[in-house]
Amino acid sequence: RQVVLDLPDIAGRKQILDVHVKNIKVGENIDLDVIARTTPGFSGADLASLCNEAALLAAREEREFVVQNDLEEARDKVSWGRERKSRKITDRERKLTSYHEAGHTIVALNCECAAPVHKVTIIPRGRAYLGATFMMPKEDSYTKTRQELLDSMAVAMGGRVAEEIFIGDISSGASGDIEQATRTARMMVCSFGMAEDIGPIQYGDRLHPMHVRADLMQQDDYSQETARELDVEVKKLVTGALDRARTILAREKDNVAKLAEALLEKETMSIAEIDELLGRTGVPSQDDVTSAAESAEPITSRTDEQE
Amino acid sequence: RQVVLDLPDIAGRKQILDVHVKNIKVGENIDLDVIARTTPGFSGADLASLCNEAALLAAREEREFVVQNDLEEARDKVSWGRERKSRKITDRERKLTSYHEAGHTIVALNCECAAPVHKVTIIPRGRAYLGATFMMPKEDSYTKTRQELLDSMAVAMGGRVAEEIFIGDISSGASGDIEQATRTARMMVCSFGMAEDIGPIQYGDRLHPMHVRADLMQQDDYSQETARELDVEVKKLVTGALDRARTILAREKDNVAKLAEALLEKETMSIAEIDELLGRTGVPSQDDVTSAAESAEPITSRTDEQE
Amino acid sequence: RQVVLDLPDIAGRKQILDVHVKNIKVGENIDLDVIARTTPGFSGADLASLCNEAALLAAREEREFVVQNDLEEARDKVSWGRERKSRKITDRERKLTSYHEAGHTIVALNCECAAPVHKVTIIPRGRAYLGATFMMPKEDSYTKTRQELLDSMAVAMGGRVAEEIFIGDISSGASGDIEQATRTARMMVCSFGMAEDIGPIQYGDRLHPMHVRADLMQQDDYSQETARELDVEVKKLVTGALDRARTILAREKDNVAKLAEALLEKETMSIAEIDELLGRTGVPSQDDVTSAAESAEPITSRTDEQE
Amino acid sequence: RQVVLDLPDIAGRKQILDVHVKNIKVGENIDLDVIARTTPGFSGADLASLCNEAALLAAREEREFVVQNDLEEARDKVSWGRERKSRKITDRERKLTSYHEAGHTIVALNCECAAPVHKVTIIPRGRAYLGATFMMPKEDSYTKTRQELLDSMAVAMGGRVAEEIFIGDISSGASGDIEQATRTARMMVCSFGMAEDIGPIQYGDRLHPMHVRADLMQQDDYSQETARELDVEVKKLVTGALDRARTILAREKDNVAKLAEALLEKETMSIAEIDELLGRTGVPSQDDVTSAAESAEPITSRTDEQE
Amino acid sequence: RQVVLDLPDIAGRKQILDVHVKNIKVGENIDLDVIARTTPGFSGADLASLCNEAALLAAREEREFVVQNDLEEARDKVSWGRERKSRKITDRERKLTSYHEAGHTIVALNCECAAPVHKVTIIPRGRAYLGATFMMPKEDSYTKTRQELLDSMAVAMGGRVAEEIFIGDISSGASGDIEQATRTARMMVCSFGMAEDIGPIQYGDRLHPMHVRADLMQQDDYSQETARELDVEVKKLVTGALDRARTILAREKDNVAKLAEALLEKETMSIAEIDELLGRTGVPSQDDVTSAAESAEPITSRTDEQE
Amino acid sequence: RQVVLDLPDIAGRKQILDVHVKNIKVGENIDLDVIARTTPGFSGADLASLCNEAALLAAREEREFVVQNDLEEARDKVSWGRERKSRKITDRERKLTSYHEAGHTIVALNCECAAPVHKVTIIPRGRAYLGATFMMPKEDSYTKTRQELLDSMAVAMGGRVAEEIFIGDISSGASGDIEQATRTARMMVCSFGMAEDIGPIQYGDRLHPMHVRADLMQQDDYSQETARELDVEVKKLVTGALDRARTILAREKDNVAKLAEALLEKETMSIAEIDELLGRTGVPSQDDVTSAAESAEPITSRTDEQE
Repeated sequence: RQVVLDLPDIAGRKQILDVHVKNIKVGENIDLDVIARTTPGFSGADLASLCNEAALLAAREEREFVVQNDLEEARDKVSWGRERKSRKITDRERKLTSYHEAGHTIVALNCECAAPVHKVTIIPRGRAYLGATFMMPKEDSYTKTRQELLDSMAVAMGGRVAEEIFIGDISSGASGDIEQATRTARMMVCSFGMAEDIGPIQYGDRLHPMHVRADLMQQDDYSQETARELDVEVKKLVTGALDRARTILAREKDNVAKLAEALLEKETMSIAEIDELLGRTGVPSQDDVTSAAESAEPITSRTDEQE
Repeated sequence: RQVVLDLPDIAGRKQILDVHVKNIKVGENIDLDVIARTTPGFSGADLASLCNEAALLAAREEREFVVQNDLEEARDKVSWGRERKSRKITDRERKLTSYHEAGHTIVALNCECAAPVHKVTIIPRGRAYLGATFMMPKEDSYTKTRQELLDSMAVAMGGRVAEEIFIGDISSGASGDIEQATRTARMMVCSFGMAEDIGPIQYGDRLHPMHVRADLMQQDDYSQETARELDVEVKKLVTGALDRARTILAREKDNVAKLAEALLEKETMSIAEIDELLGRTGVPSQDDVTSAAESAEPITSRTDEQE
Repeated sequence: RQVVLDLPDIAGRKQILDVHVKNIKVGENIDLDVIARTTPGFSGADLASLCNEAALLAAREEREFVVQNDLEEARDKVSWGRERKSRKITDRERKLTSYHEAGHTIVALNCECAAPVHKVTIIPRGRAYLGATFMMPKEDSYTKTRQELLDSMAVAMGGRVAEEIFIGDISSGASGDIEQATRTARMMVCSFGMAEDIGPIQYGDRLHPMHVRADLMQQDDYSQETARELDVEVKKLVTGALDRARTILAREKDNVAKLAEALLEKETMSIAEIDELLGRTGVPSQDDVTSAAESAEPITSRTDEQE
Repeated sequence: RQVVLDLPDIAGRKQILDVHVKNIKVGENIDLDVIARTTPGFSGADLASLCNEAALLAAREEREFVVQNDLEEARDKVSWGRERKSRKITDRERKLTSYHEAGHTIVALNCECAAPVHKVTIIPRGRAYLGATFMMPKEDSYTKTRQELLDSMAVAMGGRVAEEIFIGDISSGASGDIEQATRTARMMVCSFGMAEDIGPIQYGDRLHPMHVRADLMQQDDYSQETARELDVEVKKLVTGALDRARTILAREKDNVAKLAEALLEKETMSIAEIDELLGRTGVPSQDDVTSAAESAEPITSRTDEQE
Repeated sequence: RQVVLDLPDIAGRKQILDVHVKNIKVGENIDLDVIARTTPGFSGADLASLCNEAALLAAREEREFVVQNDLEEARDKVSWGRERKSRKITDRERKLTSYHEAGHTIVALNCECAAPVHKVTIIPRGRAYLGATFMMPKEDSYTKTRQELLDSMAVAMGGRVAEEIFIGDISSGASGDIEQATRTARMMVCSFGMAEDIGPIQYGDRLHPMHVRADLMQQDDYSQETARELDVEVKKLVTGALDRARTILAREKDNVAKLAEALLEKETMSIAEIDELLGRTGVPSQDDVTSAAESAEPITSRTDEQE
Repeated sequence: RQVVLDLPDIAGRKQILDVHVKNIKVGENIDLDVIARTTPGFSGADLASLCNEAALLAAREEREFVVQNDLEEARDKVSWGRERKSRKITDRERKLTSYHEAGHTIVALNCECAAPVHKVTIIPRGRAYLGATFMMPKEDSYTKTRQELLDSMAVAMGGRVAEEIFIGDISSGASGDIEQATRTARMMVCSFGMAEDIGPIQYGDRLHPMHVRADLMQQDDYSQETARELDVEVKKLVTGALDRARTILAREKDNVAKLAEALLEKETMSIAEIDELLGRTGVPSQDDVTSAAESAEPITSRTDEQE
């Protein structure tokens, strides 16, 4: 039913980049390890595109060598589509976006098992997002615990809650977060056996069926009443996450405002800048992987959603 | 599941028009900016058609140069199909249409977050509409707030309510408005998390799935009971909009009649003319973008619906 | 989902006929306006067929010129298929048909907003019908009001009710009427927002989606409970129409019998003949468009339905 | 959705037979009218096959001319497949079949609006039937009344009821009758508006959509609760028919036994023989069309149903 | 919807075998009648394969002529696939199988309307079965009575019940029996009108639609509540059969044990051997067709079902 | 509906391996019997791949002959994909995996009817697993008893329960176990008749339809209420298994910890090493087939499940 492509992990991506980089002229202080760590989900073909793109960027600026920045810009372009320089954002939307992203960030900083925040931005890119909170796990992780999943859902709700509190209205821009949280909740309930009242039973198709032969799979046709029980658990999980985000942001109201206003000015802030702004001196920086790295996967972001 | 075409925004459309216009002879006071602003949703191909069409119109009238009016007429033809000059409307239908459109307009003028009214017309075009209330947002807007969506639904209901009040019967011509309001309500409930009792949970497919890989999407098969809850919320939103329209139009009854009767005489009225008619002197004109511009997107219109 | 063909209206049809008629030899007193008015729903291709067919009819009768009657016969043949001369109708079925059609006609004459009756016939044509009540609107009408739709449903029920009253049994021949009334009721409820308890909400697909891009349409998957509410409203509307037809025909019993018996003798009666028969002298004739015209659209008719 | 083939009626079939018969040598006293009347549902192609088959039969028996019997045998072969001479029926099944068919016949003779019985047989033909009660309407009939449909359902139930009474067990051989009665009941309820509590509303697709353009048809998606109401009415109609059959056969028990025993001996009986056997002297023979004619459509028959 | 292949009956199979056997060299005492009687469900092509296979078997053993045994082995190979000589069965499974088959046999011997037992075996063949109880009807039978169907279901349950009583655990090997009994029950309820509370109504598609034109068939879309009623009746029938099997085997416990133990030793037993073992002297042998014949259709068998 | 490929059993695999091994140079002490026993589910083609792969491995290490280890490594590569040497596992995940696998193993050792444990590993292979508990049945088994299936479900739950007890959180890594247990439970309920309240009735399609002709199969469309009953039974079975695993592991807590800690050190442990570690001296070793054999089928394993 599903062809599971065997996407490379960090070491694998590093090896692939090593191969492709031999075909382009690169500068001396290229750090391919950073690129490998910040390209989760990239296939071999994606990494090849990244290198080509970097070469084109260098050529366009008439540099003889590809520099680290070319690689990073190429990576983002491959991930998120071309920049839309012409895009004009109204002040109202910039403010909405800024508070929305600040909401994500502040919830993330207050959830122990959330992935570390890497940077926040309200500079839109392509159609992909109006703003984004980038989070970067330190290592490849093959499974997620219940608590990690609950925290990721609370982070997703942080944007919407910040709109509620600071704008007094809510926007369609949270639909991406809603979808992500719903999908996580549904997998917790239907595949991971993480809803107490449902138990460790598989409902519907599993996302990544592993080494199970297709001819052994049975079409599970569960009943309406069971479907309703699943819905109720999914709703419980998502609204639980919403409540957690509300509790955290009510407490951290000042920090959200501080961060949002700073973002309106600076547009992009690294975790180091955020830590400094919020006086998080006692806290070890969440971003100790590499300060130059940019995660290719903003776990939450503000969508533009045109009806 | 959905190929999201990357439609150009205002600046993008301006650039495309600049290119195409080089291939046709144009007069001096062509204002391509107006055209760019009034062609939301146009693809590059649509804009090319618009320019060709304008050239043909000029040729037909044996003018050597394309003038601004050719471009605007071409734009409308591309949007709404050819004019149907032969179409005869009965007096009964003209009256129904006039009150229907006046209803839309008066509700729009009384909703703070509705898009500004640009012009109203009861001249039918093609099969597209018998009459239309054109509304034009001042700037590109990538998200909508809950209040904006509620207001747009009230405006949609304004036509039907005017029929009720002034004609004493209701017609099939409101079916387009009904569809539009229903779609808005369903997205508020199922994708935007804007129904209090439903919460921020995604039900069904999201309209514009953004940077989510298809192989990660799960078929959400929610239960009948949940489906019913969604229906109830959708109905609450639409009938709430209906009630708002009724309240507004009951209060503004005289203005609806004044506008409808004026429309029967003039057939098309700009926002400036409407403001003057209704004595809206203290109100800043809703149409300060450009007085010549015609929105290509009548947000509400009166459909002809033959059974 | 639906390709809406842009079918010509009366003026359009007149223009098309003017073109085609140039290719055939026609007599002097051809009245193409009559043909244009009596061919609603004809495409350009249908009108071309009509003209060819008329030429063939004239040739078969070895006339040098196409006369008005050829055009009218050609029109009916294009609409309803070839005549089945060999078809034998039993006396029982002729009587059933005669009362059935008289029922339609008498209800129509007693509903203010029903389309005017044009003629009634119990001469069967092809497989299309055993009998038919032809109704012809005076002008093109692009929308219908609630009252017009209610009246059309009562007319549809008139045939069945006449069977009940005069034959004492009911037949499968009303299935076409039942289907038509059901479809009208369903559209009133689901698309036109004309059921009080349902409100102006769209359920299911709209019949004629107008200038709405397909990629913006959402699959509405409403719940069973909602589906039931829609069913109840549909039933309310159809049985309401049935009751109206019963009330009218109970009152007009003598006129139904008078008309049915006259039909058994004359087989086809024009509105003028009906008016005379029923002594409807004070009533302006319903058929003041043109006495020669025959509507191409019998709004109700008696189907032959073989199990 | 449905291509309604325009099958010829009696006069039409006579014309087609006249044409085909010119290509084969036929004897003098061929009565094509009989063949035309006994081939309802035959297409032109079927009639051509019939004539070819008759010629082959004559050739096989080395006759120079096709005789009437060849045509009749050819007709039955085209209708019911080749004879299976080798088929052996056990005594138990012969008895079951004989009482089953007698049950159909006796109910039919006692229902005023049932089609007239023509002959009964317990000689099996091909896989088509183990036995059959042939009924032949006197004239082409285009519609059916409620009473005619109710009677046809009672006749269908007669076979099963005779098994109950005389064999004390029931067999799978009634499944064809059950299917036929169910289909009739469902059409009465869903298309013909003949169930009081359902009313004249169309549910599901009509069987023979007449001159309604497909693009105007709407998918009726009625609710579960409505579906249940339809089921209840269908069941009421079928079990009502079962009860009528039980009442009739309880009263006519002696006649069923008399007829069944006669059939076991004679295997096939014409209506005249049945009338004589049962002393139905005062009754005008049901078969006054032509004594030689055999209906091509046994309205009820005993199926062989192998699990 | 279904192409009903006209499979030959006994006499037909005999004729086909006569033809094919002319192409192979056969010994003198070949009894094709036995083969014809023991190949129900074989098509002409199957019978041709049987003859080819027999010739190959003779060739392999370097016999000049095909003997009766070659034909019988060929018949079984065509029916059940090649023998799997290599298959090793554990003692536990041999015991389970032996008691399972003994259960079928003893129930069959105690049900008056069950088909006669012919032989029982616990020698597995191919993937087809681990063991089988062969039953052979004496004559072709075209219909089944209610009692015959009930008895066949009790026989199917006999295997499972023997596992319960003698092994104290139940196995997946009964899944074939369960499927067969369920299918029989569902047909009794939905097609044969044999469930009192359901009545003679057809639900769903009939298995063998006979001489009914496809274009006259209506999609029956019965309701959930009706579906539930059908489920309840199906369950009633199957669990009723289970109870009958339990009653019979509780009474016949000693005979089951005696037969099962004998089977473990002898592996295959004919009905004559069974009768002798159980002292069924007063009972006429169930297998009076021909002692050499082997039914090609084991009505119940023990499946191997690997999860 | 399903093509049941006739996969070879142990003896069959041995024969196929004998053939393929003739084409490669093999060392002296090759034990093909071990390979045959440890390749359940391998097709002929799979076994051919295994031999090729082994030859390639030998070539890569510049050995002239294929040794037993090459064959075993080749077997695992064919089963589980290539090794991913580059894969880095975090300490947290190693610990989770170790306790998870220890949970499976300890439950298995305490369930009488569970298949014998062969080895446990926390060395990941490809994308197939992060860790695995290998179980190897001693003989081919064609059916499973209720108790065997219940035990296999308890073993599947052992991993999740160990996470609960020792980690205090649960992970997505149990989703494979959940799916397997759910599938087993559903087959017990719907195909094997092993749920008391459901009875021996088939619901839905059987997994391995055996010698049943497709044209005799009926689409079982069971009702919602029945579907719910099936769900309830499935849940009862799975949560029953969960409870059993909890009871066993609560009692065997020390042994789980001992085994998990040993695994963190040794990474892979044979049953012999486990028996020694746990002081299971009185217990006959579960792995008396062959100490070198590795089962190709880890019945339970810890999945990596990336959201």
